[in-house]
Amino acid sequence: MSAQESRAATPKRVTTGPIGGSRKAYSSPPGAPELRVPYREVELHESGAEPLRLYDSSGPYGCREFTPDLEAGLVFSRPWLAARQGLESYEGRPVKPEDNGFASGRHLVPPCPAQRKIFRAAGAAPVTQFEFARAGIITEEMRYVAHRENLCRERAIEEAGARLADGESFGASIPKFVTPEFVRDEIARGRAIIPANINHPELEPVIIGRNFLVKINANIGNSAVTSSVAEEVEKMVWAIRWGADTVMDLSTGRNIHNIRDWIIRNASVPIGTVPIYQALEKVGGDALKLDWEVFKDTLIEQAEQGVDYFTIHAGVRLAYVPLTASRVTGIVSRGGSIMARWCLSKHKESFLYERFDEICDIMRAYDVSFSLGDGLRPGSNADANDAAQFAELETLGELTKIAWDKGCQVMIEGPGHVPMHKIKANMEKQLETCGEAPFYTLGPLVTDIAPGYDHITSAIGAAMIGWYGTAMLCYVTPKEHLGLPDRDDVKTGVITYRIAAHAADLAKGHPAAIERDNAMSRARFDFRWTDQFDIGLDPDTARKFHDETLPAESHKVAHFCSMCGPKFCSMQITQELRREAQEMERERGLAEKAAEFVERGAEIYVEAGE
Amino acid sequence: MSAQESRAATPKRVTTGPIGGSRKAYSSPPGAPELRVPYREVELHESGAEPLRLYDSSGPYGCREFTPDLEAGLVFSRPWLAARQGLESYEGRPVKPEDNGFASGRHLVPPCPAQRKIFRAAGAAPVTQFEFARAGIITEEMRYVAHRENLCRERAIEEAGARLADGESFGASIPKFVTPEFVRDEIARGRAIIPANINHPELEPVIIGRNFLVKINANIGNSAVTSSVAEEVEKMVWAIRWGADTVMDLSTGRNIHNIRDWIIRNASVPIGTVPIYQALEKVGGDALKLDWEVFKDTLIEQAEQGVDYFTIHAGVRLAYVPLTASRVTGIVSRGGSIMARWCLSKHKESFLYERFDEICDIMRAYDVSFSLGDGLRPGSNADANDAAQFAELETLGELTKIAWDKGCQVMIEGPGHVPMHKIKANMEKQLETCGEAPFYTLGPLVTDIAPGYDHITSAIGAAMIGWYGTAMLCYVTPKEHLGLPDRDDVKTGVITYRIAAHAADLAKGHPAAIERDNAMSRARFDFRWTDQFDIGLDPDTARKFHDETLPAESHKVAHFCSMCGPKFCSMQITQELRREAQEMERERGLAEKAAEFVERGAEIYVEAGE
Repeated sequence: MSAQESRAATPKRVTTGPIGGSRKAYSSPPGAPELRVPYREVELHESGAEPLRLYDSSGPYGCREFTPDLEAGLVFSRPWLAARQGLESYEGRPVKPEDNGFASGRHLVPPCPAQRKIFRAAGAAPVTQFEFARAGIITEEMRYVAHRENLCRERAIEEAGARLADGESFGASIPKFVTPEFVRDEIARGRAIIPANINHPELEPVIIGRNFLVKINANIGNSAVTSSVAEEVEKMVWAIRWGADTVMDLSTGRNIHNIRDWIIRNASVPIGTVPIYQALEKVGGDALKLDWEVFKDTLIEQAEQGVDYFTIHAGVRLAYVPLTASRVTGIVSRGGSIMARWCLSKHKESFLYERFDEICDIMRAYDVSFSLGDGLRPGSNADANDAAQFAELETLGELTKIAWDKGCQVMIEGPGHVPMHKIKANMEKQLETCGEAPFYTLGPLVTDIAPGYDHITSAIGAAMIGWYGTAMLCYVTPKEHLGLPDRDDVKTGVITYRIAAHAADLAKGHPAAIERDNAMSRARFDFRWTDQFDIGLDPDTARKFHDETLPAESHKVAHFCSMCGPKFCSMQITQELRREAQEMERERGLAEKAAEFVERGAEIYVEAGE
Repeated sequence: MSAQESRAATPKRVTTGPIGGSRKAYSSPPGAPELRVPYREVELHESGAEPLRLYDSSGPYGCREFTPDLEAGLVFSRPWLAARQGLESYEGRPVKPEDNGFASGRHLVPPCPAQRKIFRAAGAAPVTQFEFARAGIITEEMRYVAHRENLCRERAIEEAGARLADGESFGASIPKFVTPEFVRDEIARGRAIIPANINHPELEPVIIGRNFLVKINANIGNSAVTSSVAEEVEKMVWAIRWGADTVMDLSTGRNIHNIRDWIIRNASVPIGTVPIYQALEKVGGDALKLDWEVFKDTLIEQAEQGVDYFTIHAGVRLAYVPLTASRVTGIVSRGGSIMARWCLSKHKESFLYERFDEICDIMRAYDVSFSLGDGLRPGSNADANDAAQFAELETLGELTKIAWDKGCQVMIEGPGHVPMHKIKANMEKQLETCGEAPFYTLGPLVTDIAPGYDHITSAIGAAMIGWYGTAMLCYVTPKEHLGLPDRDDVKTGVITYRIAAHAADLAKGHPAAIERDNAMSRARFDFRWTDQFDIGLDPDTARKFHDETLPAESHKVAHFCSMCGPKFCSMQITQELRREAQEMERERGLAEKAAEFVERGAEIYVEAGE
């Protein structure tokens, strides 16, 4: 489908049902029926094989029988929140006209009717996952993610044996099996976060940390012309269908408050935002009119709605701005450039930096996680790893410690544009500077010469930095640097980043990763075409590509493919070889001879007497 | 354009003219007007900037004024061959019915009328580039590739200064400037090859070695139904247009001799083949009927036609076959499985291994380069770096030394399917085992779970292994493992691999690489949209993507893009910041203060007295 057709085809309803060839299901840890942990299952046509269990981020939308009711919002995945101690419900901040960019009348998107009670911390009792973890308390969210990360793990350990140890994790501590206690300990150390606002009960908890499966984020934004809220919700649904673990809503302009409400009430994944964008809207787009009051008001507004993590560019300090003056591409982060302009024009230190304690207090009260923004990230390979970038990173390290002291969960955002030989230094410096807080990187793009293909230039860097230790990868679509992604671009970006994340898991030796590759390889060797399609990240595309050359249904069981055709098929020959070799082995002890032969250096002629 | 439309749109003529926004040109080294070395030039709308010179593989097809005459073939790019000593012309082998799979009558593709005189070595005088290099003689081909690799280099050295040293090359010896003597020395050491059959005078020479720019190969194959020879030639032309440095013709079935003739007579790039495919056709597809005579006859047939390199699977030895029996995916190389079946069924050592000396004599006589095939490469991540793979690699090292002794040029083929953490070992082992002969790898794919996206799974591995030292990367298209690539797939595969190769050059610190990235970054910062499109690998797609969101011509000069819109543009803000910062710097010595501030650890409050 071309981009044009695709845009035209944007549905008026959200997409439901499982990815082709699979079934969405839920499982509860022993003794905790209220925890309904999702996974996806692919039926294999392999003799004796159990269905393949896959991690699933699609939420209830992935269920065949699910009928969304956007006005009601999702059924709570975290029913236990209602009984949680230490929280108080309160009236909440009234919606103001500027929250929706003064949209009114027929221009105003109606509010989502699914209003929830609003909660906040009632006092000093633990509220955030970090506080619970530090207090030695295992929350339902911790149990949930432990069970979620473990999919297939026990079986894989039994089956694959020694192969599981294979990997290079660069000092990560990936366990063979994830226990709730391990999750608690990782969170308490600051090495992992569960972004989970107490006002987002619809959330299916996700853990982000380098000792867990690598996660990916997809960005969405509102349209200039919104014809229906279903279209806005569909953007999120479409991204999580293909594997986005979190979604950032980067909307600007009118109606963002109300659209955000529709999204969060219908979101099963953590939602992140960059509150400075909305704050800037509220002051008419003039950075110099920004101040603490409008920013604080925006934080509370979004925290009450249930946003799970905020990008805060508190590391862009006045003194660092001149360090960017000789760069090839200056400052490329929107938030970073807004704050740089504010600091420089007023010749004052950033209010985000100066008010950081107060920001922490707000974040803690709702358990909104920090995503400390890298406002001075490089915008080109030439600017990678420069003084401005690393000065800011030092400050992010300093702020991480403050946020932890305040009880908040923290992750750190990273670049951007970095050639391959400079990627590892980014990871090492981040781990050291920020006390192993999870790293959340955009790409990085390893070259700038391929606009139109930046999902690929960045997936190369993303796979590598994920291997080195990045916990979450922010996707890049083919439209990066050129235009707004359409539906196809979002899917391509998500699938590409699932590839990068999985390649990283595999290289780190994550016990849950190899199983899917092996299932695919066995399906290839057995010519189980349908299984090959279904095990893959995108069964629809794989099936379509196969059918373009060999459309007949009979070819789905053919013992050859279109690459080699029936005469040349190497796998077919190998299968025959294997039978013959086994035969010969029995008859002549060939394998033994062969090993001996190889040991001797595989010389054809062996000196007499040996 | 959808795949369907694209296939329908396959032109009846070959594509000519430069890539949009650029101009194809030629340059001669001082004192050598007969050497017309190609490059491509992009006009920049940057004040004072010279046009950007790019490496170009498109041949005369990339010229605006070129009108192909397929029947006459290309004008010779190597006119000096006619005067080269040590060659003799002779009658050549007559074309036999089996060469074209016994096609006859209207089923027979007519032979290409552009018949050339056929040459071979006349005696012991140097014939191959390796022999010339060893004898201390610099050939025209060596001068040619030196000039070709140097594009922009002198200017880049002057401009970029210290930045050029930036890179990690893992022990490669990349020079700041490539001299013909450096080329000769690299070839003499066996570290680089120029695949250039003396019967391929139409060739524009290309050097393959880890101290040169990383090259890429695209595979093509004949169609089941050939409606015109132009369509077959167009596959090659289309691949080199987007940047394939060499093309392998993997055709099977009828008419392969005659179609190969049309391709080579019209090919400006080195053409590689796998002769065992045609040999197998000649014996009716039955591997057991293969023997030295039919193989030898095929080698001579293709060498006389002008094929520049042959994949020879001489490392698949009888004793190694049982080592594949317990693999997840057995043997996946076509050539490898054919030879394995032959060896095992007859319980005899491979005739390719036993007759290797004689193969060398044929290769030398025409200067056909060896591409020693990895018939036992892994077909899945699970089989990577196993005993079978590395046993064969040892044998390829042994054969490399024999081929060098015989005066032949050699490169070594590599995997395949390798997770990230096992890639480096492949490169290190190859360099050590094969005396630094150039490595030529297929991908490798770093995960197997994404059929439909294997150009991406493999580009991740390709970029990494290219960085580690691979000299040429064999492309993978989105259709890999699923079907036959169409026109769009070939383009996507080539562009994806140009990204991988360039990312590798950049990370290795290749002096010619960074210039293009910097030109792109400056164009971004200056909002020169047309330059951004034209500097990129695929201007057509970049322009199309941009226009989907901002179609108006006036937006090509707009100081914002569709991602942020006019209000939020970070680059715009940075430009203003830069002016303001410079102003302030002058006025207050801010930069000095800032540096001091950063040095003190960026504390806001400094103790009195300091």
